[in-house]
Amino acid sequence: MLFCKVKTPGLAHVAYVLGRKGEAIVVDPRRDTDEYVALARAEGLRVRYVLETHRQEDFVMGSGELAKKLGAKVVTLDHPLFGHSDIKLADGEEIELAGVRIKALHTPGHTPESTCYAVYLDDSKAAWGVFSGDTLFIGETGRTDLPDREKTGENAALLYDAVRAKLGPLGDQAILWPAHASGSVCGGNIAERDDSTLGFERTYNPVFTEGRDAFIARKVRERIPRPPYFRTMEVWNLEGGRALAKQPGAVPVLAAKDFASEMKQGLVIDTREPEAFAAGHIPGSVNVWLDGLPVFAGWLATESTRVYLVLPRPDDLDEALKHLARVGIDAVEGTLASGFEGWRDAGMPLAMGDTIAPRELEASLDGHVVLDVRDDQEFEQEGHIPNARHLYVGYLDEHLDRIRKHLEGKATVAVTCNVGHRSGLALSLLERHGIRGVKNLLGGMTAWRKLKLPLEKGTAGSVTTPDVEGERR
Amino acid sequence: MLFCKVKTPGLAHVAYVLGRKGEAIVVDPRRDTDEYVALARAEGLRVRYVLETHRQEDFVMGSGELAKKLGAKVVTLDHPLFGHSDIKLADGEEIELAGVRIKALHTPGHTPESTCYAVYLDDSKAAWGVFSGDTLFIGETGRTDLPDREKTGENAALLYDAVRAKLGPLGDQAILWPAHASGSVCGGNIAERDDSTLGFERTYNPVFTEGRDAFIARKVRERIPRPPYFRTMEVWNLEGGRALAKQPGAVPVLAAKDFASEMKQGLVIDTREPEAFAAGHIPGSVNVWLDGLPVFAGWLATESTRVYLVLPRPDDLDEALKHLARVGIDAVEGTLASGFEGWRDAGMPLAMGDTIAPRELEASLDGHVVLDVRDDQEFEQEGHIPNARHLYVGYLDEHLDRIRKHLEGKATVAVTCNVGHRSGLALSLLERHGIRGVKNLLGGMTAWRKLKLPLEKGTAGSVTTPDVEGERR
Amino acid sequence: MLFCKVKTPGLAHVAYVLGRKGEAIVVDPRRDTDEYVALARAEGLRVRYVLETHRQEDFVMGSGELAKKLGAKVVTLDHPLFGHSDIKLADGEEIELAGVRIKALHTPGHTPESTCYAVYLDDSKAAWGVFSGDTLFIGETGRTDLPDREKTGENAALLYDAVRAKLGPLGDQAILWPAHASGSVCGGNIAERDDSTLGFERTYNPVFTEGRDAFIARKVRERIPRPPYFRTMEVWNLEGGRALAKQPGAVPVLAAKDFASEMKQGLVIDTREPEAFAAGHIPGSVNVWLDGLPVFAGWLATESTRVYLVLPRPDDLDEALKHLARVGIDAVEGTLASGFEGWRDAGMPLAMGDTIAPRELEASLDGHVVLDVRDDQEFEQEGHIPNARHLYVGYLDEHLDRIRKHLEGKATVAVTCNVGHRSGLALSLLERHGIRGVKNLLGGMTAWRKLKLPLEKGTAGSVTTPDVEGERR
Amino acid sequence: MLFCKVKTPGLAHVAYVLGRKGEAIVVDPRRDTDEYVALARAEGLRVRYVLETHRQEDFVMGSGELAKKLGAKVVTLDHPLFGHSDIKLADGEEIELAGVRIKALHTPGHTPESTCYAVYLDDSKAAWGVFSGDTLFIGETGRTDLPDREKTGENAALLYDAVRAKLGPLGDQAILWPAHASGSVCGGNIAERDDSTLGFERTYNPVFTEGRDAFIARKVRERIPRPPYFRTMEVWNLEGGRALAKQPGAVPVLAAKDFASEMKQGLVIDTREPEAFAAGHIPGSVNVWLDGLPVFAGWLATESTRVYLVLPRPDDLDEALKHLARVGIDAVEGTLASGFEGWRDAGMPLAMGDTIAPRELEASLDGHVVLDVRDDQEFEQEGHIPNARHLYVGYLDEHLDRIRKHLEGKATVAVTCNVGHRSGLALSLLERHGIRGVKNLLGGMTAWRKLKLPLEKGTAGSVTTPDVEGERR
Repeated sequence: MLFCKVKTPGLAHVAYVLGRKGEAIVVDPRRDTDEYVALARAEGLRVRYVLETHRQEDFVMGSGELAKKLGAKVVTLDHPLFGHSDIKLADGEEIELAGVRIKALHTPGHTPESTCYAVYLDDSKAAWGVFSGDTLFIGETGRTDLPDREKTGENAALLYDAVRAKLGPLGDQAILWPAHASGSVCGGNIAERDDSTLGFERTYNPVFTEGRDAFIARKVRERIPRPPYFRTMEVWNLEGGRALAKQPGAVPVLAAKDFASEMKQGLVIDTREPEAFAAGHIPGSVNVWLDGLPVFAGWLATESTRVYLVLPRPDDLDEALKHLARVGIDAVEGTLASGFEGWRDAGMPLAMGDTIAPRELEASLDGHVVLDVRDDQEFEQEGHIPNARHLYVGYLDEHLDRIRKHLEGKATVAVTCNVGHRSGLALSLLERHGIRGVKNLLGGMTAWRKLKLPLEKGTAGSVTTPDVEGERR
Repeated sequence: MLFCKVKTPGLAHVAYVLGRKGEAIVVDPRRDTDEYVALARAEGLRVRYVLETHRQEDFVMGSGELAKKLGAKVVTLDHPLFGHSDIKLADGEEIELAGVRIKALHTPGHTPESTCYAVYLDDSKAAWGVFSGDTLFIGETGRTDLPDREKTGENAALLYDAVRAKLGPLGDQAILWPAHASGSVCGGNIAERDDSTLGFERTYNPVFTEGRDAFIARKVRERIPRPPYFRTMEVWNLEGGRALAKQPGAVPVLAAKDFASEMKQGLVIDTREPEAFAAGHIPGSVNVWLDGLPVFAGWLATESTRVYLVLPRPDDLDEALKHLARVGIDAVEGTLASGFEGWRDAGMPLAMGDTIAPRELEASLDGHVVLDVRDDQEFEQEGHIPNARHLYVGYLDEHLDRIRKHLEGKATVAVTCNVGHRSGLALSLLERHGIRGVKNLLGGMTAWRKLKLPLEKGTAGSVTTPDVEGERR
Repeated sequence: MLFCKVKTPGLAHVAYVLGRKGEAIVVDPRRDTDEYVALARAEGLRVRYVLETHRQEDFVMGSGELAKKLGAKVVTLDHPLFGHSDIKLADGEEIELAGVRIKALHTPGHTPESTCYAVYLDDSKAAWGVFSGDTLFIGETGRTDLPDREKTGENAALLYDAVRAKLGPLGDQAILWPAHASGSVCGGNIAERDDSTLGFERTYNPVFTEGRDAFIARKVRERIPRPPYFRTMEVWNLEGGRALAKQPGAVPVLAAKDFASEMKQGLVIDTREPEAFAAGHIPGSVNVWLDGLPVFAGWLATESTRVYLVLPRPDDLDEALKHLARVGIDAVEGTLASGFEGWRDAGMPLAMGDTIAPRELEASLDGHVVLDVRDDQEFEQEGHIPNARHLYVGYLDEHLDRIRKHLEGKATVAVTCNVGHRSGLALSLLERHGIRGVKNLLGGMTAWRKLKLPLEKGTAGSVTTPDVEGERR
Repeated sequence: MLFCKVKTPGLAHVAYVLGRKGEAIVVDPRRDTDEYVALARAEGLRVRYVLETHRQEDFVMGSGELAKKLGAKVVTLDHPLFGHSDIKLADGEEIELAGVRIKALHTPGHTPESTCYAVYLDDSKAAWGVFSGDTLFIGETGRTDLPDREKTGENAALLYDAVRAKLGPLGDQAILWPAHASGSVCGGNIAERDDSTLGFERTYNPVFTEGRDAFIARKVRERIPRPPYFRTMEVWNLEGGRALAKQPGAVPVLAAKDFASEMKQGLVIDTREPEAFAAGHIPGSVNVWLDGLPVFAGWLATESTRVYLVLPRPDDLDEALKHLARVGIDAVEGTLASGFEGWRDAGMPLAMGDTIAPRELEASLDGHVVLDVRDDQEFEQEGHIPNARHLYVGYLDEHLDRIRKHLEGKATVAVTCNVGHRSGLALSLLERHGIRGVKNLLGGMTAWRKLKLPLEKGTAGSVTTPDVEGERR
């Protein structure tokens, strides 16, 4: 038997390949499916079924393409949001493959069509495990605000009831195989562990330990950013996703001058680490570290944005292209020859940001406006630098006027996040809009806390105005 | 958190790397430890502890060397058979690393020192999982005949009691992390699944479903081959195993003539598939397919045997060397330039075996002596060709006289096993001792069964004489 | 400066990537261009020009696609057979890139449009080297029979004159960069060396050492096989070749039964080594070893043939697909799950060939018809087994009746070639047409010669009848 | 035939593997020999001879170890500086391997024992090519100051005469295979091309185009830095080099705190790019980019220096270890877990440098002391920033007092080199000695020239005092 988890870095997504006796099932494949195919092929397995737990919002699915090229069937619950599937199961209905029985369990809440699949082996009565999609994560449940922010509570109630009615009875022994691991934007506090069982979840997962009302109330309070590209994913995935648009390698390498001229038509993304970016970069470029591409490129670019890449190393191109393609960004039109070095050595125009160490910032807090760009929950619950302003990095672009007002007359802005990546992006966005001299706090709040420097909790002192909050939701 | 299973092909061994907050534990490392080190390094983890569940018999451990080169400590139960360890835990004692608590549970039976380690996270009361060594496998328990064949029953009783007293109480939710997966010689019927929980085992693992007496009786009946190299492993592993002896690449490539001259001092192992071997090979060479090396080389060679390799492809050398080194065979003195092709094209002497298809054999059973070289359990329980003779491939060399007697006057020998690999080895061993015209049954008993050709069960009709049985045990 | 030779195994084709100061040229790219692109990218080079030395006959070119995806220009001589190019140079005209000057030299003979490109650096007067296409190889010249077999002599005269008038004057110091290395079907006796200079060629290459008449006479006598797929290549390459049709991985893995049912619609190619094939294979399958695919698949399949693959190892698929795509065979519709093992273990029907050692054949020549399937030159000039029949493997299929007649009443056929690969293909073709019991001579004529067994030279004794010769040309 | 160039990045060293008919020669192997062995093995070649062109000064040779592990012979000229070799050839004497004839040509000048090897194939009279060691490079000759700075002229004369007497007569057609390519410290102006012939060299290499006196005078003027580790290499290589000391992976990954405590016993090398380093680094660490390790680590560390590495990515460790081992630095005692990020996020002490863009520096030259750390030739001949001070980066450490004096009272130091790598090292060295606020000129003199900013030539204005010069030589 083959059982593999295939993780997608950045998205913290997990797909599964389950094979036995020459046949295989793939669960929730992403757009680029080579890795699944290679795993099955190495074991001599024919992919028969492609299962979807729900219409994914955070990446382009590969179900349709995978099924088409390998002659497999897409299997889902019978629900309108799974419009394209080949086999539509009723709630509680089973399919069987090589002695592996898979029972569809309708568990709405995260989304209306959300489905879990309990897995039984041969004639076993106890479930071996469950593909729990975005319904039940390790230590967490799926967010319930996506279908309709106004109905977050109702959906939380649906999810709570579904988990308890459909998954609980599977038994403590059942292994949990969710669609996301820690780091995903599909759930707030997914545990860092990748392995769990229903029995282990029962001891500490809030959906099992909290009462119904407390659970709903907590979900209603949850505020997880929702990147704009989610809308596109929903449209594409209704059709089973899309095939990859670009063949590997099909990106011109542009020398500094050509790059300078062509980049005017699009967006320059510099994927170096924030320190390197701060010390010198192309004016107007935005800074998204390599593994941050799947999450943050979707805030900055759409399907039609022409993207120009500055890469740490030439052979990072393939990874960058995959990261972008997975969130529907295909129009990568060029990569800078020899990366930033090529630009620098050609005597091209340069911009600089700055960095600051925690102790240095603490000693000069009066001279700085601190802008904290973590999400609302991190800012409010994990503590922040006293008197820091707050706005999630994803919303910076649309609230520049408000930010400018806050910074008025102040000498310098210091940006911070958890360790420095998102603040690096913030630095680049501010600078792009003419706000100079921004400093990135090295090590962010992680280092700040390690040094036991002063912290403040709660929304008090936060400077995103009520209006901003209002618009945002 | 990092949690990785690292499987060793051929040996079906599983080691584990568990890391958190910059620190890592490795459980039951094999001799070549690069893979563990790379996994930890990629996540920025320092290896602090190396755990041993028992003194492994089927491969050389890497604990001592790994700990030495990375400055880690070897952790075991406090027991004389763990003589070399740095930290010796009492039964029930815990160590802690980055919030991961590991409790030693003495579970003798497979071997006297066998230890399981229950794993708890932070302040959880329920166990997350258990490193169950060779005590509890998925669907099976460790063999109990190794310390003393005469005390198989007593050891089975110890094991039964230990599993129920020490592991059962950990709860259904606990994940099972054994030291071997399906295919190992350390347990008879390990399930093909690699994932299970104590709760799932409780529903079908004989140690939980059988009564004590039935369990003991079954273990006493179990007859699993015991390769001679186990003795060496036990000696080496008492000291924590041994470092690798050979640097990669340090094997001369020998042209056919040089190979022919040097091979006289040692053993030629041809690692091609059995069909290719049958159609032409070096006279006197033995045929062990690549992934079969860790299991079968230990029947043929010892630490001091000079080994000469015929490889399917030049870059299989590294894998072959690893396979051999893991079972303590280091003296690989040459590899044949361009493999069998190099020999063939040089006009060197050739030997041939033969192959036969199942239907063809069935149609001519009268003209053949069928020699079935699977192990006793396979032969007796899974059915065999009517009137087949039986001797496990590992014992062929020592019972050649007896085999010759059985073959006397018969036109041809057909060898078979499960699919054709072990029978390929048998063919080569027979031929090496002058028994010509041996045919390998293509697809072995697997194809035979698929074709629903006649089968016989039981030991009746088996031709290993009582004496052979007697000597063997 | 970057200067790379990129060889294509099997085809013995060589493409070149030449880069400097951020810009690159690719010469004679094959259909799959990733390797060229990656080389240029690693050095920060933008591909500006794609040069063609001639309209290749033996593989699909990648010029058009490469230029399109990277925004480069295709550069050729101004000649109708280069219909698709972007920049058309007059004979003697130069283009320049980053100080590298490239001068087109019209050198017809191999084909009417054949062009060499002399390369000069900066203001050097002496040529640094020359891309000599299929005009001048190392130790050889391009075949001159392709445009019109009747005009082989005229074309040889053209080539002889062009080499002496256009290449000779470049000087002894000039490095030679031809489009093919040893093993190509585009030239008869290309040297095994890959490095040479015009000066070194002058000392021993027949085009320099022979007189004009002797040279022409020799070329007229040359008989190199011409695979049928050449016609398709000529058509495709007139348009600059074609983009790859298939994404990697897009081939279903078929279990034995499915494979058996689907293979009826197409051709099964078994790419194992001939020994393995002989000892057991799918009835009706043809045997072409992996690296032989680009040369021999083109004799057996066309663009529209549905191909089913039996591979030695699962991860050989990508290489096999590339080999086939390079000669225009895209319709690979399935690969056998677990290769031959999967078929064998499923109890599916089996066919067997046989192998024979040289000494054994020599001792029983009377009982065998020896069929030598090397090409005419090898058979006639390198010597063959006394009384052997001869027919080039590529023509077996069309002359089966004649072969059958020669074999009539004889017990057994032994096939041979240089070492056993082409004879393995011959064995499979004969067997497919109902000729059983064929034996492949292990080590072929190479081993036979090493053993100093009796040889015969010349066409006398050859059994391809005059009619066969007539039809063939 | 196999003929491969194996380049060593950083050292710009080239070794060669030449194989034919089952046998191979390796020329000038470096310490880690796996790559040569794998190349030979893939072609089924047995390494028979290991040739040395001279006792290398800039890296540890692998001849002795390679010969020992593969049973080959080390072949050299018969000269005391080749004390360890197995076969000692007289000047003009040949060895032969598989029809490849290799003739030793004593060509002293670079070093007393320097030898070239002319290569002839079979019965050819013209040389195919020549392994020219450090005697004749492409466009350059080996430096002649190493044996004795006082005898640079005499050695230049020896070299001039040897090249003309021994190499010239080999003929224009002979291909040149030198031991170094562009970028080596073994020659001043090696051409960027990697391919040449004696004929092509004759048209522009000064040793052929200059008169004897002019050549000698030019060599005497040449001032190429001589790293201190050369002395160790000379000692080790007299014995044929040394085997690798460390197994891959044998370096502990140290968390920030452990790293901080252990690093006090040694040298911290941060191998990130200079921009990233400038924006934040460990106080006291030195900055040598990854490919700069083989050249610059030898200025900073010796065999006994305990080295601690800060790496851009975890899997750069193997490359870094190889780079260091090749120049005899084996004592790498730790690598920082998660690199600089791990340090930063732990709130550890930080130091910062600064960067400056060319136009910005030009606009504020008055406020800066420019320190140019290129070598003497670059500074003097390629032009420098008006009024720049100059000291080669390798000598910074020993002349800190003098530098301090020059900087006295000045606001800021700007460091520059060709593009910014060596100046990054300089920045780290200055800072380590308490000189703060140093700025690295982005793009160095390359960008400066591209922007056509003012330049000065010659030594005038240079601020290394005569005393410094005197001490240095």
